[in-house]
Amino acid sequence: MSIYEMTVPCFAQMLRALQGFLKKGEAHARELGCDSKNLLQSRLAPDMHNLASQVQFTCTQAQEAVLRLGQQPLSALDAPDDMEQANALIERTLQLLSSADRARIEEGAQRQLSIELPNGMAFDMTGSEYARNWVTPQFYFHLVTAYSILRNNGVQLGKADYVPHMFAYLRQPAA
Amino acid sequence: MSIYEMTVPCFAQMLRALQGFLKKGEAHARELGCDSKNLLQSRLAPDMHNLASQVQFTCTQAQEAVLRLGQQPLSALDAPDDMEQANALIERTLQLLSSADRARIEEGAQRQLSIELPNGMAFDMTGSEYARNWVTPQFYFHLVTAYSILRNNGVQLGKADYVPHMFAYLRQPAA
Repeated sequence: MSIYEMTVPCFAQMLRALQGFLKKGEAHARELGCDSKNLLQSRLAPDMHNLASQVQFTCTQAQEAVLRLGQQPLSALDAPDDMEQANALIERTLQLLSSADRARIEEGAQRQLSIELPNGMAFDMTGSEYARNWVTPQFYFHLVTAYSILRNNGVQLGKADYVPHMFAYLRQPAA
Repeated sequence: MSIYEMTVPCFAQMLRALQGFLKKGEAHARELGCDSKNLLQSRLAPDMHNLASQVQFTCTQAQEAVLRLGQQPLSALDAPDDMEQANALIERTLQLLSSADRARIEEGAQRQLSIELPNGMAFDMTGSEYARNWVTPQFYFHLVTAYSILRNNGVQLGKADYVPHMFAYLRQPAA
C-alpha cells in the first residue's frame, strides 16, 4: 500500500460523493422552495462550523495532502457562498488531486513535515504519520459532518450516496 | 505504508477518542440530571441510526478489518444499552485490535474478500481495496456521526477530543 494510494484516489472518490450530497441538497431546497444557501449556512450546533465551512475544510485537507507531501506551498481556500461556488471548489480540488505527482508524494512519506495551527501549536511528524494520523481523520471529519448537516435538514442521503465508488465492486449475477 | 499500519493502530487511536467522547457525554448528562441513555438513543434525523448504533457500527468496522483481512469468521455485535456497555464494547474491540496478527493482515492485502450486505448485494475486492474504499470510510462515518450526535446534544467536544493522539507530535518549546 503506497501513501499515494491511501490518500489521493480515496479523497477524489469521496469528493465526488460530496458533490452528490450537495446536488441532492440543492434539489431538496428547490422542492421546499427555499434558497440552497440556507443549507450552506446550517450547522449541527451553534459552536460548530456550517456546511459551507465543512466543504471548504474537506477540500483544504485534500489539497494539503498533495501540497504537504509534495513539499509545495499551501494556499488558503475560502468558504463557498453558494452551491455553484461549492461545486467549483470541489472541481478545482479534484483537478489538483488528478495532477498530483505520484512519485513526489511517495517520496514525502519519510520526510518530516510540520502542521502549524493558527493558535500557535505546531506538530512535527513524517509524511506517513501525517497521512494516517492527521489528514485522513480530518478529511473524513469534515466530509461526514457535511453529510450529517444535510441529513439533519431532511436531505435523503444513504450509504449509496456516501460510497458510490463501491458499485465498481458489485458482484454480477451468474449468467 | 503497510495495510496493517493504515488500519489497526489508526482505528485503535480513534476508538480511544470515542471513549473520550462518551465520557464527556456521560458527564454532560450528569450535569443536566438526566440519564445518559437518552444520549445513546439520540439521532440526527429520524431515519438515521442512534448513538448506540453508531458506537456498535464503529466497533463492527474495526473488528471486521482484523477478521476479514485475517480471513477469520465475523461475529455480530449488539448495540450497547448503556454507557457501561458502550465502553465495554470499545474495550473488547481495542483488545481484538491489539492482538491482531500483523503478518496475517499484511498477507490479506492481495487476497480477495467479499462483503455481503443483508439486502443481498455483494461486493468482491482485494483486501487492499477493502481497506481503502470500504472499511476506512465506513469506520470514520460512524465515528464522526457519534461525535456529531453528542455535539448536537450540547456536549462540548473539539478537535483535541477528536485527534488526542496528535499530542504525541506536539513541538516542544525551545529550552
